[in-house]
Amino acid sequence: MNIEIVTIGDELLLGFTIDTNAAHLARELAALGIRIVRRATVGDEPDGITTAIREALERTGAVITTGGLGPTADDRTKPAIAEIFGKAMVLDPDILAALEQRWLKRFGVSMPESNKQQAMVPEGATILTNRHGSAPGIWLEDAQHRWVAMLPGVPREMRGMLADTLMPRIRDRVPAGGVVVRSRTLRTCSISESAIADRLGELGRGVDGLSLAFLPGVDGVDLRLTSNAYAAAETERRLNAAAEQLTEKIGRYVYGEGQDDLAELVMLECATRSATVSVAESCTGGMLGVRLTAMPGASRVFQGGVLAYANDVKTRELGVETASLVEHGAVSETVARAMASGVRRKFATTIGVGITGIAGPDGGTPEKPVGTVWIAIDLDGAVHAVRAVIPGDRAEIRQRAAQLALDRVRRAFQGDAASEGWTVKA
Amino acid sequence: MNIEIVTIGDELLLGFTIDTNAAHLARELAALGIRIVRRATVGDEPDGITTAIREALERTGAVITTGGLGPTADDRTKPAIAEIFGKAMVLDPDILAALEQRWLKRFGVSMPESNKQQAMVPEGATILTNRHGSAPGIWLEDAQHRWVAMLPGVPREMRGMLADTLMPRIRDRVPAGGVVVRSRTLRTCSISESAIADRLGELGRGVDGLSLAFLPGVDGVDLRLTSNAYAAAETERRLNAAAEQLTEKIGRYVYGEGQDDLAELVMLECATRSATVSVAESCTGGMLGVRLTAMPGASRVFQGGVLAYANDVKTRELGVETASLVEHGAVSETVARAMASGVRRKFATTIGVGITGIAGPDGGTPEKPVGTVWIAIDLDGAVHAVRAVIPGDRAEIRQRAAQLALDRVRRAFQGDAASEGWTVKA
Repeated sequence: MNIEIVTIGDELLLGFTIDTNAAHLARELAALGIRIVRRATVGDEPDGITTAIREALERTGAVITTGGLGPTADDRTKPAIAEIFGKAMVLDPDILAALEQRWLKRFGVSMPESNKQQAMVPEGATILTNRHGSAPGIWLEDAQHRWVAMLPGVPREMRGMLADTLMPRIRDRVPAGGVVVRSRTLRTCSISESAIADRLGELGRGVDGLSLAFLPGVDGVDLRLTSNAYAAAETERRLNAAAEQLTEKIGRYVYGEGQDDLAELVMLECATRSATVSVAESCTGGMLGVRLTAMPGASRVFQGGVLAYANDVKTRELGVETASLVEHGAVSETVARAMASGVRRKFATTIGVGITGIAGPDGGTPEKPVGTVWIAIDLDGAVHAVRAVIPGDRAEIRQRAAQLALDRVRRAFQGDAASEGWTVKA
Repeated sequence: MNIEIVTIGDELLLGFTIDTNAAHLARELAALGIRIVRRATVGDEPDGITTAIREALERTGAVITTGGLGPTADDRTKPAIAEIFGKAMVLDPDILAALEQRWLKRFGVSMPESNKQQAMVPEGATILTNRHGSAPGIWLEDAQHRWVAMLPGVPREMRGMLADTLMPRIRDRVPAGGVVVRSRTLRTCSISESAIADRLGELGRGVDGLSLAFLPGVDGVDLRLTSNAYAAAETERRLNAAAEQLTEKIGRYVYGEGQDDLAELVMLECATRSATVSVAESCTGGMLGVRLTAMPGASRVFQGGVLAYANDVKTRELGVETASLVEHGAVSETVARAMASGVRRKFATTIGVGITGIAGPDGGTPEKPVGTVWIAIDLDGAVHAVRAVIPGDRAEIRQRAAQLALDRVRRAFQGDAASEGWTVKA
C-alpha cells in the first residue's frame, strides 16, 4: 500500500514552521508496512492545494493531508478537496453543536461567527473526531475507493487524531504478511556516543541484518535498530535478539526504550518503593522539578523543592555552611552534598537531590570550566556525589544536568553509585 | 521569480529525519523576493527523483534540490537530473583531485573507490564549490535558461553552500527593485485567537495589502504580518504602518516582537528597575524558575523559589494558613496570594509570584475544572491575583500558566492589574 502526504500551509512553504507532521506520519505508517512514496507541501492557495492533491490521488489513490482545517480565513483545504471529489460543502449540525458546546464549556462565551466554518464539511464525508482540539478531521472516499484523509496542522491534534481514528481505519485496509519497516530504540544516559561505539565494536555497524543508528540528544544517546526487509514476525524476532545483544554490552547505561522518559521511570520506581523526593536546584533553576511533575499523580512522590539560585538561599534554606561556600565555592562536592541532605531533611523525604553547576556562558575557570556540574543524591541518609563536565550551550548544559541527576537516582536505587562514563568523581 | 524545492532521501520519506533544509531555503529565498510555490520530498529511487524534478521544472523552470550527492550507493540525484537534461555523466578531474587530497589530509588514507562517484557530474554542469564538506554541488541549465541547482543534504553543508555560491548566483537573476517577501510578528499573551479576531474586525483579514496570520502557541498568539507584493522600501513602510494599526487595537496584549521571550523581557525590566524576584510554584513545578534562569546573568534578579507541590510545604515554607487550604482549597485566590506574599517575604525580594492550579488530567471539579489556575503577583506589597481556565493538556496548561504569570509581572510593572481576556478574576 502506497500513500502520499500533502502538507498544507503558507507557514510551511515560507519556512516559518518546520514540518514535523510529515515525519511523524511517515514513521507511524511505516510500522504498518505502508510506503510513503512522495510528500508535497503547498501554500494556502486553493489552486495549489487542488493540483497537488489531485496529482497525488492519481498516483496512489490514497492521500493524507495536514493543515488548513482551522477557523481562520486562510484555511482552504476542505473546499479544495470537496471540489476534487465533486462534492458540495454542507453544514454538519453535530460538529456545529459540539463546537458551540466546547466554547461555552471552555471559555464561557458563545462561539465567534468566524469559527462556524469549521462545521462545514464536504457532502458524504466521514468525520474523524478530534478529541484534542476543535477542528474535526475529514475522510472522503469515492466509488473507486480512492480516499483523502484530512488532519489538522497543529502537531498535537494531528498526532492524537492519527492514533485515535485514522490508524485504525488504515490498518483495516493493509493486507497481512508483507514486509514491514520497524525500529526499536534503546535509550542510554551518562555515556558518550564514542564510548558506546568503543564498547559495541563490530556490533556498532549493524546487528544481524538490521541497521543501527546512533542518535545523540540532550537526554543521552539513543540507539535505533531498524529492520526493513522482513515480515512482521521475523522483524520482531530480529529486533528482540539485536536489542539483547546491545544490552549485554552496555546494559548499565540503558534506562529505557522508545519514548521512555527517565523522569517518569524514576517516579514510577519511587511510587513502587513508596519513596518520596525533594529537590534543591541551583543552575537548573527548576528543571528537575518540572521533569518530576510532568506526569499526572506526581504528588504521591514529589513533595517540593528549593530553587537555591542565590548563595544565601543555599545557606538559609538548605543549611549549606557559609564556610563551605567560601572554601570550596558554590559548585563543589561539599555544597552539592549539603544541598541534597538539606532539602531531604527539610521536606522529610526518602530522597533529596542537589544540583549545582556553571551553566555559562560566563563564570567558568580553568579548574571549573563552564559545564561543570556537581550532583548529589541523598537516599535514606546515604549520600553519593558525582561531577560531570557537560558540553553544549547554557540550555543544553541545564537539560543534561537534570537528566544526569535523574540517572543518578535510578542508579542509586540499583545500588550502583560508581562514577564512570560521563560522570567522574572529582 | 518562482522556485520549487525537491528534497531527496529515504531518511526524509521514512520520517527518521525532519526536513529542516526546505524551511531554511524558503526563508533565505523569500528575502530576495523569490516565492517557493511548492516543495516535494521523494526517496532515493531514480524514477521518483526524475519525475518530481521534471514536473517541478515544467511548472517553474527553476528547481533547487537537496540530498543525494553523497558517496553511498543510494545517492542518485545527479544521474537522474542529467537524464532530464539529456546529458551524459562524466568524470570531473578537478573534483576527483580535490576529493583525493581531502581524504589524504583529513583521514591519512587514500580515498575509497566508492567515493569516486562524487566526482561524476552531468556534462556541461557548473560546479558549486563545497567548502563545508566533500560533495560538491551542481548547477545544470539548458538553452531556455531552465535550471536545477543540486545541494547536499547535510544541513550544515547545504547552508554553507547556499550562502557561499548559490545565493549570489540567484541574486544576479532577480531584477533589482523587485518584489520582496518580508514579515513582522507581534507577540501577544493573555488573549485568545478569537478575541483578537473580534477586536481587530476587518483588520483581521489583512492590513493595507499585507496578509495577517494568527499563530497560536503556548506562549500566546503571534500575529504575523507578511508583505509579498512590494519592493524593499515600500515593504518596510507598510509593515511598520500595519504593526502600528494592530497595536492601536490590541497593544495592551502585545509583549514583544519576532523571537522575543517574555521571561527575558521581564528579567530585563526587573534589572532596569533593580527589582528582584522569587517564585512559589505548585502546579508548574519549577517552570517559572526555569524560564527566569534561562538567560545568562539571571542571578542579579532571580533569588530563588519554593516548589510547593505538597500542601504542607505551602503552609510550612510559605505561611499559607491551613484554614485557607481547608476553606478555599489549594487552588484558590487566597492561597495564591499567600504564596506570592509568603515567598516574597521569605526571600526578601521586590516581587513574589505565586502559582497554584489544576494541571490535570484528573482533579477537576465542576467549580474548578482542569486548567483552573490562580496566579498572584506581590509587587512591593501590592498584591493582585487573577484566575485563568487554561485549555490544553497537562504540559500546555503548565507552560501557559508560567507564561501568564510572566505576563502578570509585565502588567504589574505597567500598573495594569485588570483582569480580562484570558484571565478573569473569580
